[in-house]
Amino acid sequence: MAETAKLSNKAIGGKCVMASGYDAACDVLETIDSPADLRTLPEERLPEVCTGIRKFLIGALSTNPGHFASSMGAVELTVALHYVFNTPYDRIVWDVGHQAYGHKLLTGRRGRFDTNRKLGGISGFPNPDESEYDTFTAGHASNSISAALGMAVATEMNGDMPRRNVVAVIGDASIGGGLAFEGLNNAANTPNNLLIILNDNDMSIDDNVGSLHSYLAHITTSKGYNDFRNSTFKALKRIGLVSDRHRGPIMRFNNSLKALLSHEQNIFEGLNIRYFGPIDGHDVGNMVKVLRDIKDMTGPKILHVKTVKGKGFEAAEQNPSVWHAPGKFDPETGEQICSDKGKECPPKYQDVFGETLVELAGCNDRIVGITAAMLSGTSMSMLKEAMPKRVFDVGISEEHAVTFAGGLAKEGMRPFVAIYSSFMQRAYDQIIHDVAIARLPVTFCIDRAGLVGEDGVTHHGAFDMAYLRTVPGMIIAAPRDEQTLRNLMFTAQQCNCGPIAIRYPRGKGHCVDWRCEFRSMEIGKGEKLREGRDVAVISTGTIASEVTKAIAEAESKGVSVAHYDMTFVKPLDEDILQEVIETGCPVVTVEDGTVIGGLGSAVTDFFAEKGHNTAVRRIGIPDRFVAQGTVAQLRSLCGMDADSIASAIMEAAGVVNVEPASAQQDLR
Amino acid sequence: MAETAKLSNKAIGGKCVMASGYDAACDVLETIDSPADLRTLPEERLPEVCTGIRKFLIGALSTNPGHFASSMGAVELTVALHYVFNTPYDRIVWDVGHQAYGHKLLTGRRGRFDTNRKLGGISGFPNPDESEYDTFTAGHASNSISAALGMAVATEMNGDMPRRNVVAVIGDASIGGGLAFEGLNNAANTPNNLLIILNDNDMSIDDNVGSLHSYLAHITTSKGYNDFRNSTFKALKRIGLVSDRHRGPIMRFNNSLKALLSHEQNIFEGLNIRYFGPIDGHDVGNMVKVLRDIKDMTGPKILHVKTVKGKGFEAAEQNPSVWHAPGKFDPETGEQICSDKGKECPPKYQDVFGETLVELAGCNDRIVGITAAMLSGTSMSMLKEAMPKRVFDVGISEEHAVTFAGGLAKEGMRPFVAIYSSFMQRAYDQIIHDVAIARLPVTFCIDRAGLVGEDGVTHHGAFDMAYLRTVPGMIIAAPRDEQTLRNLMFTAQQCNCGPIAIRYPRGKGHCVDWRCEFRSMEIGKGEKLREGRDVAVISTGTIASEVTKAIAEAESKGVSVAHYDMTFVKPLDEDILQEVIETGCPVVTVEDGTVIGGLGSAVTDFFAEKGHNTAVRRIGIPDRFVAQGTVAQLRSLCGMDADSIASAIMEAAGVVNVEPASAQQDLR
Repeated sequence: MAETAKLSNKAIGGKCVMASGYDAACDVLETIDSPADLRTLPEERLPEVCTGIRKFLIGALSTNPGHFASSMGAVELTVALHYVFNTPYDRIVWDVGHQAYGHKLLTGRRGRFDTNRKLGGISGFPNPDESEYDTFTAGHASNSISAALGMAVATEMNGDMPRRNVVAVIGDASIGGGLAFEGLNNAANTPNNLLIILNDNDMSIDDNVGSLHSYLAHITTSKGYNDFRNSTFKALKRIGLVSDRHRGPIMRFNNSLKALLSHEQNIFEGLNIRYFGPIDGHDVGNMVKVLRDIKDMTGPKILHVKTVKGKGFEAAEQNPSVWHAPGKFDPETGEQICSDKGKECPPKYQDVFGETLVELAGCNDRIVGITAAMLSGTSMSMLKEAMPKRVFDVGISEEHAVTFAGGLAKEGMRPFVAIYSSFMQRAYDQIIHDVAIARLPVTFCIDRAGLVGEDGVTHHGAFDMAYLRTVPGMIIAAPRDEQTLRNLMFTAQQCNCGPIAIRYPRGKGHCVDWRCEFRSMEIGKGEKLREGRDVAVISTGTIASEVTKAIAEAESKGVSVAHYDMTFVKPLDEDILQEVIETGCPVVTVEDGTVIGGLGSAVTDFFAEKGHNTAVRRIGIPDRFVAQGTVAQLRSLCGMDADSIASAIMEAAGVVNVEPASAQQDLR
Repeated sequence: MAETAKLSNKAIGGKCVMASGYDAACDVLETIDSPADLRTLPEERLPEVCTGIRKFLIGALSTNPGHFASSMGAVELTVALHYVFNTPYDRIVWDVGHQAYGHKLLTGRRGRFDTNRKLGGISGFPNPDESEYDTFTAGHASNSISAALGMAVATEMNGDMPRRNVVAVIGDASIGGGLAFEGLNNAANTPNNLLIILNDNDMSIDDNVGSLHSYLAHITTSKGYNDFRNSTFKALKRIGLVSDRHRGPIMRFNNSLKALLSHEQNIFEGLNIRYFGPIDGHDVGNMVKVLRDIKDMTGPKILHVKTVKGKGFEAAEQNPSVWHAPGKFDPETGEQICSDKGKECPPKYQDVFGETLVELAGCNDRIVGITAAMLSGTSMSMLKEAMPKRVFDVGISEEHAVTFAGGLAKEGMRPFVAIYSSFMQRAYDQIIHDVAIARLPVTFCIDRAGLVGEDGVTHHGAFDMAYLRTVPGMIIAAPRDEQTLRNLMFTAQQCNCGPIAIRYPRGKGHCVDWRCEFRSMEIGKGEKLREGRDVAVISTGTIASEVTKAIAEAESKGVSVAHYDMTFVKPLDEDILQEVIETGCPVVTVEDGTVIGGLGSAVTDFFAEKGHNTAVRRIGIPDRFVAQGTVAQLRSLCGMDADSIASAIMEAAGVVNVEPASAQQDLR
């Protein structure tokens, strides 16, 4: 590995601050407003640029939190790519994209980087709406090869335009996803010059899993492949037959020669993709050379680059999982700053899930836990720690997670599959085909349901209630508080009612005292939380707390409001709906999910079937893609906060007759 | 390849009929009512059993059509598996399952095989509700490894029960799917003894594609791997050091030895799965030996078996694509019997799609076609034939198909992605993330939408309208006839309105004269098909023809019925809905898709928003899984045929007040 200076020096939010030895690095970064500026620099100044980027990131992220370690690890790669390729004419497709902060800094967004992940600011992921350098939507893993292949093939079909290079940059965790494999399997089918960069930092967010991962480690240590090629080149150079100028052609020739002469084949070459590497991903000079060598080769190729997640910040290098998205930290000491310190906080829903699962698994030896590279994010890590053999982290493989759970359930186990809502939608077909048709008792714990805040458009858990409602026999529940989450989990593992989905949001709840005795819940039964005469509010999930505030406001203005909690979105509590029909009240439904096909639609379907004569105002995530911001900001923008709900209630009661202003705003 | 007699001899539907030379084969099959019976036979009689199965299948399928060539190719494999493994205690998981007819014959369903794919009969795919030998739902490709892995891991966790073997049988096309790769990548992560049989017949339904496929062909012809092992064994045997009894241990030993001594590694061993093969899948005796050799080995392993699709029926061997599901045929001559012969038939929707796409592509050089192993099924083959470079068959890779289309669209192409509805649901996330967020102009041609008939529960296209409606910005259209399909395709390729889905059913339309001039359609605009005073029917798609019949019936009883065609399910034609509100008529909605979240729900949502006072009866696929039968039978059972619609109309009009009897029946 190339030596990279450790950058624990003082750096302050959003600025590349001068500190002894780094003046030049800061200065040079300040001169780069686009990759074209970068390309005017001599090669030998690139390490300075890298240092400048690292200093900037440390400063910026210490005060405005975001994804840290991945971007730190990809600095040299980012610089080398923009230096060698003619971006934006050439295309770089970042997989996932949380490693692309350096890319944002080099492509005209340095000045706005203090707005990263904020409402109205720049997105934490590449976003084609934001910059022409962001060529494709990123956020969900494993899509870069297929997307870049499409772009490369389109380029090939436009024969009359100058050659355009397309590069996919994918991590070693993402390349284990099925979509990435499908892309690899198709890469050699059609003429194209796609270059895939495998950014191998031996990590996912948590430790990487899967055989492909071990395989990549094996390649790295295997002597055969590259030594052969490199030593041939060195030998020829030593005897004066070639110079550095010939390196590219020789590398290419050796590569073909080797394929002809030897039976040894790696997985990628087995798929007809020429393989180069692994090379040191922190030696920017060598990367520039290698990229120049291979960039104009014909046909799909893969360059395996070894990097260190968190590179350049010692604490992050030591503990890259913790530093994946660390929150605020001290840029000098690497100490993370916990804003909750000393407070008696309510727990996160994730921890309620995690601790409850450990309790339940202690009593029911059929329970197993499954997640897909979200071990710490979902707090499935708690069961992993307590009973390691009963947890399966399958890596970025949501489809496999669900079908594998189906197989386990078929043989009598009680799998709890914990996956974020926006990633669970990748397994929609498997939920139907491999679980629901055979009514297998799999419990889907749908984490990060609803608006998630700063991760933005690709990460909101907007769709789960709607798409799961289409699935025959699926039970869908959304607890309104921590105790209900516990009781739903308890109920799920003991009932013989086929698949159950339990959805809950990211982050903290309200009730500190949540370690209740377990109570079995009746499937399909909701609860009347308060009586009222003028308007009936039906909500599901934790957004009940916004409803409570809204009702207080409405009551203060003389409107009497009933509040029903639909714990189960499917099956619906028809007794409650019948009661609402009998009261004749206008209805407001409130859910933290899309208004199309979720709770509100279920209610309107029921009322229409009964010929019930009332207006239903459905409050939820509107039928638009919602960008990043705090959850509170986004709820307000989407008309889902207490104020908006109060307005809707009063409008339904005939007290006021205006849309809340917030619901009219642009969400992108 | 082992010699197998060609069985073009006379055989008659559902019976293994005696013909010269085959008496014994028929007799022996008649004695097998379960695999336990099979296991009482001496090994040398297994070829007779195979012959008996083939004769039976030829006889049965010539009169009652089904999947033919795949099951013919898997006969020896099926017999060997049930002979060696202790089914049903040991588990066989069939991938896709259209190769499992032999399995059905051996597991107690020979006597009911004449009901194959029929209403109330046995399913054309393995179905756990039907038999304990059918261990997992099959129909959608590539799930067997993950499901079987779950079962094998569960077995391992139940340490106190006798060893249970779990076998996944997967074809060379299915193993290219991303889900299968995710399963392979996870197979070695957890202790288990999973055996994967790769049934390699060098075929998908159409020609197989993808690099993995070429790779498998390479393995087959490569000399190194197996020759080494087999020759070692033979050499030792020749000098008398070992006998056949030692074959297993030697094979095992060599396998490990080889991995240690050699750098040569195949893809599967790269994933830590021990690889054996390829072996001849028509030599039942040898297969029994090999399975016995490897069945009790510890850890995941793969056995690569080479078979011939259609084996034993000459016409099918020659042209396996055509004989995948050939319809009725003459068992003697192999001539396919076309029931439409000589009739001036209306074309299939598939052919309207195919021919229209060729026309459009001739005028718009941005148009490209993408499908996922459904080239002939969707009639994308027409464009492939006309302009081969503009069609991409990506194999069983629906997710890749969609993301790849996104990449193409990003660079200015106009991709038409033709995939069956029930398989498109595998790419729900990619539709959202890789197409809709960036509003890319991809046209999704959703084939086999609605009830598909004989393929049954896994294949109905029930969910597409509902899950696509959740996607912001998605346009969803369902043409009511062939001309509208053409015009929608024409409109899609010229409008700048982001992604469009066009859904249409399997099979023939009504209008013979469909080659109309192209006409641009207004997005979101429906059509009033007839005036009426008493009831308003709003339908979408080709089920309009049932509505027309129903209205005729209702009118004959004095009910005046308006009929609106909602060509677009999203965006809705709100003018039409407003008009309906103004008439104050009760409303019946009719769609060939789930009643949860589709057209009907869109209408009730709209009405509830407006506070419109009317009952809406939503007719569509009910919220249950629907088994196989003819489309007409299933429509009747689901209350979606003309009679049921007429009853609903009359009930809405207050003329009768009973549910149609059919809607009450059990659908499973």
